[in-house]
Formats: sequence, structure tokens, C-alpha cells
Amino acid sequence: MTDSLMIERSLQGSTLLLTLNRPEKKNALTPAMYSELTSALAGATADFAIRSVVITGSGSAFTAGNDIFDFMNTPPTGESSPVFGFLQALHNFPKPLIAAVHGNAVGIGTTMLLHCDLVFAALDSKFSMPFVSLGLVPEAGSSLLFPRLVGHAKASEIFLTGRSFGAQEALDMGLINQISDDVVKTAMEVAAMIGEQPPTAVTNTKALLKSGHHQAVAMVMEAESELFRIALESDEAKIAFMKFLEKKGAK
Amino acid sequence: MTDSLMIERSLQGSTLLLTLNRPEKKNALTPAMYSELTSALAGATADFAIRSVVITGSGSAFTAGNDIFDFMNTPPTGESSPVFGFLQALHNFPKPLIAAVHGNAVGIGTTMLLHCDLVFAALDSKFSMPFVSLGLVPEAGSSLLFPRLVGHAKASEIFLTGRSFGAQEALDMGLINQISDDVVKTAMEVAAMIGEQPPTAVTNTKALLKSGHHQAVAMVMEAESELFRIALESDEAKIAFMKFLEKKGAK
Amino acid sequence: MTDSLMIERSLQGSTLLLTLNRPEKKNALTPAMYSELTSALAGATADFAIRSVVITGSGSAFTAGNDIFDFMNTPPTGESSPVFGFLQALHNFPKPLIAAVHGNAVGIGTTMLLHCDLVFAALDSKFSMPFVSLGLVPEAGSSLLFPRLVGHAKASEIFLTGRSFGAQEALDMGLINQISDDVVKTAMEVAAMIGEQPPTAVTNTKALLKSGHHQAVAMVMEAESELFRIALESDEAKIAFMKFLEKKGAK
Repeated sequence: MTDSLMIERSLQGSTLLLTLNRPEKKNALTPAMYSELTSALAGATADFAIRSVVITGSGSAFTAGNDIFDFMNTPPTGESSPVFGFLQALHNFPKPLIAAVHGNAVGIGTTMLLHCDLVFAALDSKFSMPFVSLGLVPEAGSSLLFPRLVGHAKASEIFLTGRSFGAQEALDMGLINQISDDVVKTAMEVAAMIGEQPPTAVTNTKALLKSGHHQAVAMVMEAESELFRIALESDEAKIAFMKFLEKKGAK
Repeated sequence: MTDSLMIERSLQGSTLLLTLNRPEKKNALTPAMYSELTSALAGATADFAIRSVVITGSGSAFTAGNDIFDFMNTPPTGESSPVFGFLQALHNFPKPLIAAVHGNAVGIGTTMLLHCDLVFAALDSKFSMPFVSLGLVPEAGSSLLFPRLVGHAKASEIFLTGRSFGAQEALDMGLINQISDDVVKTAMEVAAMIGEQPPTAVTNTKALLKSGHHQAVAMVMEAESELFRIALESDEAKIAFMKFLEKKGAK
Repeated sequence: MTDSLMIERSLQGSTLLLTLNRPEKKNALTPAMYSELTSALAGATADFAIRSVVITGSGSAFTAGNDIFDFMNTPPTGESSPVFGFLQALHNFPKPLIAAVHGNAVGIGTTMLLHCDLVFAALDSKFSMPFVSLGLVPEAGSSLLFPRLVGHAKASEIFLTGRSFGAQEALDMGLINQISDDVVKTAMEVAAMIGEQPPTAVTNTKALLKSGHHQAVAMVMEAESELFRIALESDEAKIAFMKFLEKKGAK
């Protein structure tokens, strides 16, 4: 299997369905996959026939997040890295972006949801942002977007302890719109419904909704990215990664 | 009935009660009504004996929103229009403004609540902001105030699908303070209680509470107003309006 | 008892436990106590062995807030006052700050929680910010932080009516993380857990979480402080204080 099949694209009506397709690694994201996602979003932006994009994962998880070996072997180098390019594309995507989550959504698997316009999640979803536990810092604008959504106390608890949370808590937080048995079906139906709406009104409304903090998010993403890059090279992170891999190996 | 009776004013103790009084049209708002509301708020600002204002609707609804025929026949022309004048007055009103809602609160009927200091709603309340479905965009600063209140995912869902929501969901969102059987009575009681508080402390506190985003709201209201004006002239909106009127006629 | 014992310090593992220790006055805060707290936070900042700080109250309450006689006899004089120094220290403290609340948390007893990273509260906790009822205005950045947390309508209700609220409502608001039977034990356990996390990641993450509004909070604290100082000298406040003391004396 080549990298180019790791993001499956399927056009259904006016909705582009993107499926993270590396199930044997729980859809852990590689630089190549970020680049493919970026390119898929660019394509969807340019194509008038595409009214919205749904993103989901194949197999048992949404995504295990950034591949941990990639973090160690090919760490992202700031704003020119594929992951940063993907985050920029996510942040600037002008059409409705809808996530359909099931199973684990780790790290960027959770933080990317803060950029989605609607999120549907299965009851077995498990969200986590264990950046601090790995000696890292929050990314993807989550250090601004998450406390704004859930308040400072809740955001601190989640980030500082690294604990995961389930679908019901995510719903109470406002991170997701609805718990659904068949998340892809629900997401595709809502996407189709939004696809019937006047398209200029839809994109202008999304732009207005984001305008309140669009620039602030771009700025914090740069600050996070710089701290993240420095953290990845730190002894703290190296020790934390070793602990993580030992724990994983012990299972 | 002349336009000047369409906003009923009644001073009860230190509280000015404003009643939208066009029940045969479900209190749909006309340019004349906006101007009257603006003038009532200006009067209340200047009158030291008035400590707070309660706004409600007569008949079966709070308000059906902006009259749809007015949108087509006399579209608001940006910042000099009566509706923009009313929104400015609402945004800058220095004393407590309390809404008592029952039945339908459509469009500006819901977005004006984001500027009220307290909101009481009857169980039969039905809130909706169907701007996108009409080919339009959110107004009255709602594109900033609503996502800040409920999070981006929930705000996107409400705006992009155009779906309505009831009193319980509005309470969970924090859009309203309380569900009440007799909203006007409850609102007048709370207004009287606040009227007993030290008045300078009350207005200074309201000003501080708004100061965090007062300027940002003013700016987004201008951006929304411009996009709204352009949208009203678009083919998209014309088609959406026709669909809306056909659906209404078919009932 | 000298003032210097009114803030008890106890180092347990990597956590500094600060106990407000003036139980006979329900831990009402004096200028000397603010100065001690400021100094304790400065010490904790400088000491690498201290990873987090827990703050609690002795006796039956968290704190009755600023001593009301101090307000009248030695009113805070703006930015050079001990209370403003404490608020600055609170706002800038770089390590996790965890509050363990039980009983009454009045005025600054509630507003300081908005600066804490995690808050645990006993079921008997009673939060109140009766600034307006005393002819004063919100302080400690609460006029920005509280509406951002709970929405404008809820914040207006709490501030304008002065009503108190309990632990369950505080939890629903996101003001506290958890209701606990033994708040100090729970707070110390979570502090110890965070103390095991990579320390640079912890402080960088806290800094990122605060960065979104750090400057805005500093600015609003100055505006509040100025309005607060003017209010304290007003006839409105003097009358409100007399009423308050009469009511208290009548009990």
C-alpha cells in the first residue's frame, strides 16, 4: 500500500468523504498523510461541486494521533512541516467540515475537532490530548480554543493531567454536536442537508463565525508550534517518550 | 392603528415595560417599530427614574423577526437604516435590559437576546435564526456572540442548518436565565429587585461586563451588516425567499 | 496571634499548601494577609522543588472575602495596595494553583477562583460576589473572566442581583472541577499527580492557556480597580455598607 491510499477520497453527492486509512496503526498520522489531507482540502476548496467535507477513520479508531516514532525520527520543523501545513489548511478551509469520530481520538485527533464545524461521535469515542504527559505542549490552537470552549479550570484539568474523556463528557463540553450510532451516516446526512442551503450564505456565515478569533488562533498556533518544536528536543520529552513506549510495550 | 402604537410603553415603578404590539403579524418588526424602540431606549437612558427596561411581545409570539416583505421591498441600507440604529441602541444601552420571551422568537427576535442582560422565557418559546436558509448571514453581532456562548460546533449547527430550538435547550446554552410560567411577571420582579440596587454600581458593572468585547461586537456588526446588505440583493436570497413564501403559502 | 501566622504554609512533597488561618473571622482577608499570600506565591515561583500550590481555608469557611471594616477604614488605594499586589501575583503565577473550597467563598473568595487552574469544592460551598449590593463593582478580572465562562446573561444575573450559588451550580458553570467530600485531600492528590508531570511542559502549557487573554485581564483589572476605588468613596457605597452592617447586626 502506498501512502497515496492512506487518505481515501469518496465524493457522494456534494459531500467529499475523507477516510483516514491506516487501520493497522489506528490511523496514526504520518507526514505523507498530512500532505494528502492538505491537498484534499485544497481540492475541495477549489471545486464548486463540493459543498462540504466529512472526515472519519477506518477500522477501530478515529486516529491515534501523530505517529510517535515520527515525532522522534522526523520531528516537525515548525511552519514548513507537513503537519503545520495541514493545520493551516484546516484553519482556513472555507466550507463546512464535519467530523465523524469513533474509538480513540488522540492528540491532533482531538485538537483538529476544535476546527471542525460539526462533530458527530460514537458512544465508544475516547478523546485525549496527552501532550503534557509526553513533555510537549498543546497544539493546533487548542491552548486558545479549548479553554474558550470549556473554561479555564476544565481545560487545565484535561491538559495538565492528560486524562481522556468519553462521548458524553465531550457532548456536555460542546466539543461534539451529537452522539450517534452510525456517525458516518449521520454526518453525511447533515452534510447533504447543509449542501442544500444557499452556498454563499453558508461560506460567509462560516467566515463570520470564525472571524472573531481567526487571527488570534493563527498567532497562537505559531507560538505553540515554536514551543512544541523546542519541547520535542528536550530531555524532558525524551524521558517521557521512553516511559510511554515502555508502558505500551508492557501491555 | 398608527405605527406609534406598535411599541407600547408602560412605566411600572422604576421599570419601563416595552411591548411589541403588532400581534396580528406576530410582532414582525418594521422600520417604524425599530425607530420607536430606538427612541424608547434613548428616553430610558436619559430618565434617571428608569432603572431598567423589560421587553416583551403581545399576543402569541415574542416576534416573528424582521418583516419578510420589508426585507424585499425596503431592504435595510447599511448603517443608516432603522434596524441598524436599533442594534446600535441595543448594543450601547447602559441600563439593565431584560427580555420576557414566549412563543416564536425568529431572527432578530433571538439575536437581540444576546444583547439583553437577563432573559426569561416561557416553556413554549421557540428560538430560530434561519438566516442561512434565507440566503442571508447572521446579524446583530450574533456571529461573534453566539459561538462565544455555545461553542463553535453548536453555533455552526444552529446557523448552518437553520433549525429552531426550545426553552430547555436555550437554558442549557446559557442564552436564557430561567424558564418561567409568567415571564412578564418574573422579569418585572427581577427588574424591580435590580432597581433597588445602587444605580451607579449597576451601570458600571454592566459596562465592565460588556467592555471585554464591546468594540469587537461593534466591528462585527458592521461586517455582518455589509454582508447582509449584499446578500439581500443576491439571486441566492431571492430564490430562498420565494421558497420560504411558497412553503408558508402552502400551509 | 501575629499576622504572620494568618497564612499557614506547609510543604508536602512538591506541593505547597497555603491555609487562610483566621477562622474566628471566617478568614476575612486583611492587607497583611494579601501581602503574605503575595510573598508565598513569589517564594513558590522561585523554588524549583515546588511544583504546585494548593490554597484552602481553616475552620468553617474558605473566606468571607475582604474584611468589610478594612474596606471602610483602610480602603485599597489602587495599584499600590496589598490586594492589587496579590491579584497581580495570582494573575502571573506560573505554576498550577489549585483551590480547595468549603463553606462561604465571598467576593474575592470567589473571584480568585477564576485565576486558579483547578478548583475542588465541598458540597456545602456557597459562592457569592455581592459587589453591586455593596455599591461596588466586580474586581480581580471577574468582569471579563466570569461572563466568558458562563455567558453574559448568567453573569449579569449573578452580579446584578448579588445572589449566591452552591457547589452544583458552580460545577455546571465550569467554575469548579469537581465536588468532593474531602477537598484538601482531593486537591493534594491531583497536585501530586501534576507534580509527576514534566515540569517545563506544565508551566509552558499553563502559560499558553492563559496567553489568549492574559493582557486583556491585566487591562480590565486596572479598569475595575479604578472604578472600585471611586465607588468605595461614593455615598452609594457608604449607604450600602451601613445597610449591610445593620442587616448583619440584626441577625
